[in-house]
Amino acid sequence: MMRKIGVIGLGNVGATVAYTIVTKGLADELVLIDSKQEKCTAEYYDLLDSLGRLENYTKLIMQDYQALADADVVITAFGDIKALAEGGDRFLEYHFNKEQAKQVGIALKQIGFNGVIINISNPCDVITGLLQHHSGLSKQQVFGTGTFLDTARMQRAVSQALRQNPHNIEGYVLGEHGESQFAAWSTITVQGEPIVEIAEKLSLNLADLDKAAREGGWLVFNGKKYTSYAIATCAVKLAQAVISDAYLACPVSVYLEQYQCYVGYPAVVARSGIVGIRSLALTADEQQLLATSAKMIAEKTREAL
Amino acid sequence: MMRKIGVIGLGNVGATVAYTIVTKGLADELVLIDSKQEKCTAEYYDLLDSLGRLENYTKLIMQDYQALADADVVITAFGDIKALAEGGDRFLEYHFNKEQAKQVGIALKQIGFNGVIINISNPCDVITGLLQHHSGLSKQQVFGTGTFLDTARMQRAVSQALRQNPHNIEGYVLGEHGESQFAAWSTITVQGEPIVEIAEKLSLNLADLDKAAREGGWLVFNGKKYTSYAIATCAVKLAQAVISDAYLACPVSVYLEQYQCYVGYPAVVARSGIVGIRSLALTADEQQLLATSAKMIAEKTREAL
Amino acid sequence: MMRKIGVIGLGNVGATVAYTIVTKGLADELVLIDSKQEKCTAEYYDLLDSLGRLENYTKLIMQDYQALADADVVITAFGDIKALAEGGDRFLEYHFNKEQAKQVGIALKQIGFNGVIINISNPCDVITGLLQHHSGLSKQQVFGTGTFLDTARMQRAVSQALRQNPHNIEGYVLGEHGESQFAAWSTITVQGEPIVEIAEKLSLNLADLDKAAREGGWLVFNGKKYTSYAIATCAVKLAQAVISDAYLACPVSVYLEQYQCYVGYPAVVARSGIVGIRSLALTADEQQLLATSAKMIAEKTREAL
Amino acid sequence: MMRKIGVIGLGNVGATVAYTIVTKGLADELVLIDSKQEKCTAEYYDLLDSLGRLENYTKLIMQDYQALADADVVITAFGDIKALAEGGDRFLEYHFNKEQAKQVGIALKQIGFNGVIINISNPCDVITGLLQHHSGLSKQQVFGTGTFLDTARMQRAVSQALRQNPHNIEGYVLGEHGESQFAAWSTITVQGEPIVEIAEKLSLNLADLDKAAREGGWLVFNGKKYTSYAIATCAVKLAQAVISDAYLACPVSVYLEQYQCYVGYPAVVARSGIVGIRSLALTADEQQLLATSAKMIAEKTREAL
Repeated sequence: MMRKIGVIGLGNVGATVAYTIVTKGLADELVLIDSKQEKCTAEYYDLLDSLGRLENYTKLIMQDYQALADADVVITAFGDIKALAEGGDRFLEYHFNKEQAKQVGIALKQIGFNGVIINISNPCDVITGLLQHHSGLSKQQVFGTGTFLDTARMQRAVSQALRQNPHNIEGYVLGEHGESQFAAWSTITVQGEPIVEIAEKLSLNLADLDKAAREGGWLVFNGKKYTSYAIATCAVKLAQAVISDAYLACPVSVYLEQYQCYVGYPAVVARSGIVGIRSLALTADEQQLLATSAKMIAEKTREAL
Repeated sequence: MMRKIGVIGLGNVGATVAYTIVTKGLADELVLIDSKQEKCTAEYYDLLDSLGRLENYTKLIMQDYQALADADVVITAFGDIKALAEGGDRFLEYHFNKEQAKQVGIALKQIGFNGVIINISNPCDVITGLLQHHSGLSKQQVFGTGTFLDTARMQRAVSQALRQNPHNIEGYVLGEHGESQFAAWSTITVQGEPIVEIAEKLSLNLADLDKAAREGGWLVFNGKKYTSYAIATCAVKLAQAVISDAYLACPVSVYLEQYQCYVGYPAVVARSGIVGIRSLALTADEQQLLATSAKMIAEKTREAL
Repeated sequence: MMRKIGVIGLGNVGATVAYTIVTKGLADELVLIDSKQEKCTAEYYDLLDSLGRLENYTKLIMQDYQALADADVVITAFGDIKALAEGGDRFLEYHFNKEQAKQVGIALKQIGFNGVIINISNPCDVITGLLQHHSGLSKQQVFGTGTFLDTARMQRAVSQALRQNPHNIEGYVLGEHGESQFAAWSTITVQGEPIVEIAEKLSLNLADLDKAAREGGWLVFNGKKYTSYAIATCAVKLAQAVISDAYLACPVSVYLEQYQCYVGYPAVVARSGIVGIRSLALTADEQQLLATSAKMIAEKTREAL
Repeated sequence: MMRKIGVIGLGNVGATVAYTIVTKGLADELVLIDSKQEKCTAEYYDLLDSLGRLENYTKLIMQDYQALADADVVITAFGDIKALAEGGDRFLEYHFNKEQAKQVGIALKQIGFNGVIINISNPCDVITGLLQHHSGLSKQQVFGTGTFLDTARMQRAVSQALRQNPHNIEGYVLGEHGESQFAAWSTITVQGEPIVEIAEKLSLNLADLDKAAREGGWLVFNGKKYTSYAIATCAVKLAQAVISDAYLACPVSVYLEQYQCYVGYPAVVARSGIVGIRSLALTADEQQLLATSAKMIAEKTREAL
């Protein structure tokens, strides 16, 4: 048939996602949706003007919700960058985005969309829950980028500290894609070796690493007033996993029955969305941190429904 | 050895160029320079945080001019987006960028840079001339993206009008990367067939196509207050041609002896920069348009020296 | 949905096509078919064992004709390499491949395949005709790689002679993908300049270039007893154009009403197959060469039906 | 500067490595060397003829040893496929390849090659040792693909058994790239969970998995009389890691002081070659298997010096 992807919300993140999809030739049709017609037209033409310089061809469609009906994946990246710019908390977008989630979810339901939603919009875990609710899609079909980005930042921080390629670092940042997230050090290995053992040997302070991982994100945000590249590579990797039915293991925002909400946790991503959730043997402390983080998400999600 | 690229100026364009280089794995070392430390740090970390999600590895270096000494290519993308935002003329950045060109050119000379400069900064043809002058590099080693972008837009407009892949359209937009540019229709073919013949057969108005090509660019600019994706794909394609010694034919801003200035014209790009310039058999009208466009560039360049 | 491609015939060419598709991540499902079970199993596992080292995931299926029913593209690359090895004529495979074409065509018809066939099997033009006939698909849905490869070789020969990137050379080798093919010099340009003019200026002998283009192919064949890489890149580029609905202009083996057969000629390739055929203004000599070449193909095709 | 890679030995493996490098645009210059002039010419032209269909340009050089003097990486893939075809043992190539290793090592020394050698030629560990000895390069600069391929096969076998993406499987096959190799199950995890625990839970027989991993390789060999695709992806991934100074952790054939020979073991690959070797906490049984495997390699290497 053809690979069809939609991007809803063309702020810095959504537009970068679209650009990455076009430069990689990942979609045969890419549908661009934004509440601002001028912005959407701008990104549409900027991408169209790129096609003569790229090896791959992508059919670009804009502002046509109906065209999403048979999309494989819809990536949601709506947001209120002005609210966000006021300061460092992903919940600043909560009020704006909960309304957006409702509108987008209902719109996708109305057109009969039955693919997979990958949500980036913040607060990611809450908004993912709202999108699942309003779209009427199964919990398997809707998930968020969640701590996949935070895990990338942890990998970066560890790789910097130990002069390693970030791919040599395995393991997870868990919980909310937000302030209550935490690096689950018991799950993290460097070249297969538990980082807690390495830390002991090298007198490495894991709390410092955690701080370095988070601070990197804020350095990005403070310097450019948004973050775009790392999150785009995360979202695109997940979209690729869905499209190619890859059964790829990644920490994403998935629905955990135990907590009755979406929260960052390792899952397996394939064509139908989430096809598996790991069962981690966390330490008691980590379990506590996860429960606390999830509790907050669950509350905020219930409030918004 | 290793492929080393520098990007000077990390506004929307320069940052997108850097992101594209990193996602494509085109450089082994990428040096990021910006006058704003916070912005540079932000882009540096956003790219670093991407490495865990990409197949390729790129060593990222920031704010180290000395590291550019043995770079193969430096892409200049400095600018004054605030001046530009005031309205639709690439010359709004002239005053700011002529100073930048001087500073950057002198800085590259001081560190003994002897690679190739690909300039994006506007007004592109003038600034390319200034960079060549101040850097002390040969005219072969310095060129600008010029009308490579405008040609892409023409290809897009023609491809839209005729339901064609933009790669099926050959030929050039010539002259200034600015208001005095023009589509040299006598050079333009669709699947090898002269567009003037096609236009006659199909009662196609070439002036309308020219307008559509330009307007696309302004739709982008008006909608997002800058343009980034198409120009980034142009600059990256040129950098690739330099690095791989590709002898690729493209319309870029090259120095034409006849006009004593840089101006958009078809050239051949390879490791040492410009290794050949085509001799086009333009119509008398086109020759006149080119001469007029070049005259203006030559004047503005002389004024700034 | 998903991108699904089939490759029928896993000799050196078919296997290289499959490998290229997997390394580029072009298909979500790739179906491998070969008359020799052991060979098919071998390529299947060699590709499966590659997945852990590649960024992309591809679902591999083998020896399941039924799985081709909803494929977007089937690339046919069956052949009788032993017959071919006896000497330099693509018609050595005629007797073997006409039977194969019948079997494959009928098999695809039986399962209700309704996508696009891209045929590589030789003699390419004749076999393409047979596949179209037996599959019952429209002439738009079936085409061959034809002189797309020979055109690449001409581009290579010209680029070597003139120190140019092969992408700077436009134009076509026409006719049979075989001995009666010819470079249609009137269509060929270098950086947009007619090669006949360049040849005159530089005292370049076009007949020598033609010879150099062909001889390159035979050097490959004689040295490795088959050719694989260039033809694989041609077939994959065409498959990409189909899948992404690219409206890409390429010289391929298309059905020309005028000659009542498939023959190498410029066409436009998109999702439904051939969506347009150019009308070239050839010289009288070229017209004669094309007619002669096509006549032979038409006869051989009729004989085999 | 430029990325320069050499491939010595253009059998099915070496040629596939070269093709993969060209299609991915990994090298700016690629030097092809083979003892058979006709074969080298054939691969050279088959790759040259591909350039018109690829996005990237690669300068191809053939049969010029001197051109390797400043190469970043030389990949050795010489072999005696005829000897190998007689039956299933990588040591069938021992007598032929130990002479080749001497010749190639000495030749690289004579031209002053000072980059990194990645050896594929079998028996891989022994030949890597000989290449290091004869080339006079440091043990850091020379390593072999070793069990990187066998690890890929183990990942494939485990991924098939557990319906997982092969990237979800971490850990190592250790020892000889040959009959005495073994899957070090204590190091192997699936989504971070030890496979020995999974095996227990699911009553999975690890010996069967080991068998499935090996048998896949033999199915490939028996069906096509060589293996090429998976090994090419392994070699190319390692070359990429060297070129980009990636500090990538992979099990390769590295020199272990403890055993006085090259043997498959996890290492870190960067620009200067091997920049780190892990210290695994193997089980006693695994330690024994490794020691036995290494002892055999050490003996065979000493014999050949």
